Formats: sequence, structure tokens, C-alpha cells
Amino acid sequence: MRNIKLTIEYDGKGFNGWQKQPNKLNIQGEIELAIEQITGEKIELIGSGRTDAGVHALGQVASFKTNTDISIEKLSMAINSQLKKSIVIKSAEEVNNNFHARYNCTGKRYRYIINNSRSGSAIYRGLEYHMPVKLDYGKMKEAIKYFEGEHDFKGFKATGGKNKTTVRTIHKAEISKDNERIIIELTGDGFLYNMVRIIAGTLVDVGLGKINPDEISTIIDSKDREKAGKTLPPHGLYLAEVYYE
Amino acid sequence: MRNIKLTIEYDGKGFNGWQKQPNKLNIQGEIELAIEQITGEKIELIGSGRTDAGVHALGQVASFKTNTDISIEKLSMAINSQLKKSIVIKSAEEVNNNFHARYNCTGKRYRYIINNSRSGSAIYRGLEYHMPVKLDYGKMKEAIKYFEGEHDFKGFKATGGKNKTTVRTIHKAEISKDNERIIIELTGDGFLYNMVRIIAGTLVDVGLGKINPDEISTIIDSKDREKAGKTLPPHGLYLAEVYYE
Repeated sequence: MRNIKLTIEYDGKGFNGWQKQPNKLNIQGEIELAIEQITGEKIELIGSGRTDAGVHALGQVASFKTNTDISIEKLSMAINSQLKKSIVIKSAEEVNNNFHARYNCTGKRYRYIINNSRSGSAIYRGLEYHMPVKLDYGKMKEAIKYFEGEHDFKGFKATGGKNKTTVRTIHKAEISKDNERIIIELTGDGFLYNMVRIIAGTLVDVGLGKINPDEISTIIDSKDREKAGKTLPPHGLYLAEVYYE
Repeated sequence: MRNIKLTIEYDGKGFNGWQKQPNKLNIQGEIELAIEQITGEKIELIGSGRTDAGVHALGQVASFKTNTDISIEKLSMAINSQLKKSIVIKSAEEVNNNFHARYNCTGKRYRYIINNSRSGSAIYRGLEYHMPVKLDYGKMKEAIKYFEGEHDFKGFKATGGKNKTTVRTIHKAEISKDNERIIIELTGDGFLYNMVRIIAGTLVDVGLGKINPDEISTIIDSKDREKAGKTLPPHGLYLAEVYYE
């Protein structure tokens, strides 16, 4: 039995998220079907984790076991030939049989894109969150650093989703500007349900002057969802990279 | 009579280009209609020039005359409220009555985006040209400099379109890399029909090893369309900026 690791890009628009569910278009199910079409096998595709409806991925990782003799060089192209254009296998590699895309994942990097121009973008409209009110970028830059490190992010989690602990470590929390866009990047050992979108929403509140940068630590420590900002919409969010040892 | 200059972004997908034509969806006609809806006047919108079907714009410029008393601050938002999401007025400004978006244009900047990864992109698939065969970026960088300066670009022009002269000056010809993307940027006093897409196609031939960088000058001097590369598709092309004195 071979064990195959896939790196996957997808445009989340139109999908009900990563996870397989009956009668709803989902990414996991579409890829499983494409693999079945080229290998003739019913396989189980294990993702590094779910992404919500509408969320994009530049580098989702998933693995599956197969007996196919299609060479690893040809495998991703063969799967792509069966997939909708909004899902692309960027690469395939043969991994150790013990590799498990979810259990072995050591961290993830997420990106959130905000278009901060008055009018928004015609071209990238489905790929970023439009905030027409001018944000104070300097204050957001100051605030984002408070998210770095190990914290109990209980207040930055949507209800639902079972977690043994709500403690997570954000290794790197960065913000950058590219003309009319503000880009938030968070790298951490793991993220709670909606955590990136709530952090982004809290940073928007900082940019709007509703929250001071030095209040962030108090908000985190309060563990109170009401104190944090709102959950920004999914179409600005990208799973950028998944890390393994 | 007020004279208004608009800066416009659009996603060219689905449009039959800038120019107004009966029974075909076009950008000029859509904006004229939106302006009529908010001012009650039939206006004539003068663009800096046409863009072909499928070509995008980040900064197209157009102007129109109006008697409306809507303030310049509110005008672009009012027009946007009547437009499809794939067209956005980025800004509106009041200009001198003599200003003419086409006649006063002193130059343009175009961008062509090539995705040079094997699989292409799921997210940006309609916004770049996919070339799966690995291109030699160093050679393309060497070649692009030969396009700078004043040349007779007769060989880099599609048939059709009337021009008194085919001599044009490219002030700046630049190429850059952003992960799997190769981005070509050309700034010049004017461009012939399909000229940017033919230059990009010729640079792809250089990247494929079909043309040597030092052959570019000979190809330009030959004025022979057959010697240049093929015309790349419109969905990789962006009118990035239009210049005025």
C-alpha cells in the first residue's frame, strides 16, 4: 500500500467547506471522487483539518492510501484532469506509511485579506473582505503583536467544535500593506473554530478606533467572546500552508 | 457643464470589451447606463482607449460631461450602486472642460500575468495565463530590455485597427517573479492592437528556448508578424494605469 500526500489549492466560493457531507458540494468529496475515477479504488482522503464554507486554500494538505501503480509524477495531473477547475492538486509526494495529514500536523499558516479602499475591487471581489471605512494601519500593526505567544484563546472561538483545550500558540502574527490591501498572516500550532476570522475582526475594530492596541491582552485574558471583534466573512480567509516535522 | 474624469477597475471576464456595441455586454455601455440612472442624463463616456474582450483593467480612465449637481465625493459611490460588481469606479474627479480621456492621454502601463506552475491556480485561474512548461526566467529578463525605446512595432500588431504610424516608444519594459508567477509590465506612449499580448507571447517563446534574447532586435526590425510569438489570451492582460500630463 502506498501513502500519498497531496498539496491542494482551492477557491472556496461555491463549496460547503472541506468536509464530506451528503448532498452538499465539498472539497474532500470532490477529490475522493476524482481519485476513484483514476485509480478505480474507493479511498479515504484525510485532510490536515477542515476549512469552512467559502474559505480558500493555497496549501491544504491531505493524504490517502492506494494500490494504484500510477507514477507519482503523473498522479497529480491525472487527478486534476478529473477535478473542477476550482480545485487544483499542486503537488503529490510519496510518504511514509505512518504519515497522517491530521495527527502529524505541527502547525498552520493562515492569511486574511482586507480590501480597505472606499470602492472595493471589481477583479478580486470574491477573494477579499471589503472594509470601506479607512483603518488605522499603524494601530493594527501595534495590536497584532499581542496575539503572539501561548494564550488561552477561548474568547476567540465560535461556539461548536470540541476542544480538549483552548490554549494555542501563535508563533508569528504579521500584518502588511499592499496598496489598498491589508494582509494579516498568522502562523501557529493550531487554530480554534473561527479563530483567525475573529482575530481579524478584532484587528479591524482596532483599525476603527473601537479597541486600543494595548487592550488586546486584557481581551484575550477575559476569555469572553463578547469582548473580541466580530467574525469576518469566510471569503477573505486562506489556509496558506500546513506544517509537518 | 461639468467635466468628470473616472478611474475604473473591471474584471474583463464576460464582457465583449470596453467599446459600446449593440446586443453585446460591454463596459462603456454599462457605465453610461449607470450614469444615466443616477443623473437622468444621456451622456457619452469617452475612454482612454478600448480594451479587448476578456481584458481586465485596474486603472482605465474615462471622462464625461454632465449637468448633475451630485457632489464629486458622492458621484463614484452613486454610480457604483448602479453597476454590476465586476465594474468599479475607483475615483472620480472634476477636470478642466478641455480634458479629453483619449486625446490627452500621454501613455499607458499594461501588465501581463503568466502562471508558470505545472498545475496552474485554482483561485486565480481566470486572472492569469497558465503556461505549464517551465520558462527560463533569466532569458526572458534579458530579452525584455530589447523592447525598450522607440521602435516600429509593425510586426507586433494584429491585423485590423487603423494607425497612421506603427512607431511606438516603450519607456519601461520590466519583468518580475512572484513565486509561481511571471509578471510583465510595459509602459509606453501607446500600444498597437494586441501589441502587449504579442510581446508577451514572444517573451514566452524566449522562455521556451525557441527565440534567443539577442534575436529580439532583428525580429522587431523585420516588421514581420510571423517572426514574433503568438498572441497570448486576453485574460492574463491588465490595463494598469493611464497617464496624462
